Amino acid sequence: MMASGYSNSPCAACKFLRRKCNQDCIFAPYFPPEEPHKFVNVHKIFGASNVSKILNEVLPHQREDTVNSLAYEAEARIKNPVYGCVGAISVLQGQLFRLQKELDATNADLIRFTHEGSSSLGLGHVHSDDFFNYPSNLSNDM
Amino acid sequence: MMASGYSNSPCAACKFLRRKCNQDCIFAPYFPPEEPHKFVNVHKIFGASNVSKILNEVLPHQREDTVNSLAYEAEARIKNPVYGCVGAISVLQGQLFRLQKELDATNADLIRFTHEGSSSLGLGHVHSDDFFNYPSNLSNDM
Repeated sequence: MMASGYSNSPCAACKFLRRKCNQDCIFAPYFPPEEPHKFVNVHKIFGASNVSKILNEVLPHQREDTVNSLAYEAEARIKNPVYGCVGAISVLQGQLFRLQKELDATNADLIRFTHEGSSSLGLGHVHSDDFFNYPSNLSNDM
Repeated sequence: MMASGYSNSPCAACKFLRRKCNQDCIFAPYFPPEEPHKFVNVHKIFGASNVSKILNEVLPHQREDTVNSLAYEAEARIKNPVYGCVGAISVLQGQLFRLQKELDATNADLIRFTHEGSSSLGLGHVHSDDFFNYPSNLSNDM
């Protein structure tokens, strides 16, 4: 695995941790020196050691997505220390619930107007609660 | 702040970390001894020191929600090391997008049937992308 594009610069992680950045640095391909905040954020929330453990747990081709999702989660937690990106899940669940209610109402209107069963219109129904069991006591207080 | 209900038992965090659990333990109110996995998970993903720092950053009445959202995030990351709970955000965004398209199509049907403008029906429109700028390259690969 190659170190970041800047062959003479240590990656953002090694620079922050003040250590030598060598060819087999696990962080280098995903934390280029020109994006120092990406590492600072994941280090603050997860710790360098935990990030390194997670990267070693996943397959090499999954590491970029892993780092990006960790960086997204870390930034969300820094912006919102109480809910982090779980706040986003709760907001999205609320939007889904409202949109589903609106769709149901619109379908009911449509059925009234056309005097046909909704089944003939091929309309689906999303149950977001079947996917994510996020505690409801948090969902009401974002 | 009181330690957990079991006055003689150390909280799950202190038990795991093999340290004395005293009256001012920051973890005790949120990591009762009967839920050992809650602490094991957050410790594995965030580290005890980072969890303690985050708890000290938020107001006391926000700590329970903070711990619950950290526990949710940690469990999601353990189940899905690549995407963690960011995977849930992506799935929910996809559901919202499809539901909005379905609602738009249903509204268009309704307008065709009634020969009225949709504005008179009071129908709204959710733009999930305005809320969360999650990188689109991840959203397509959950």
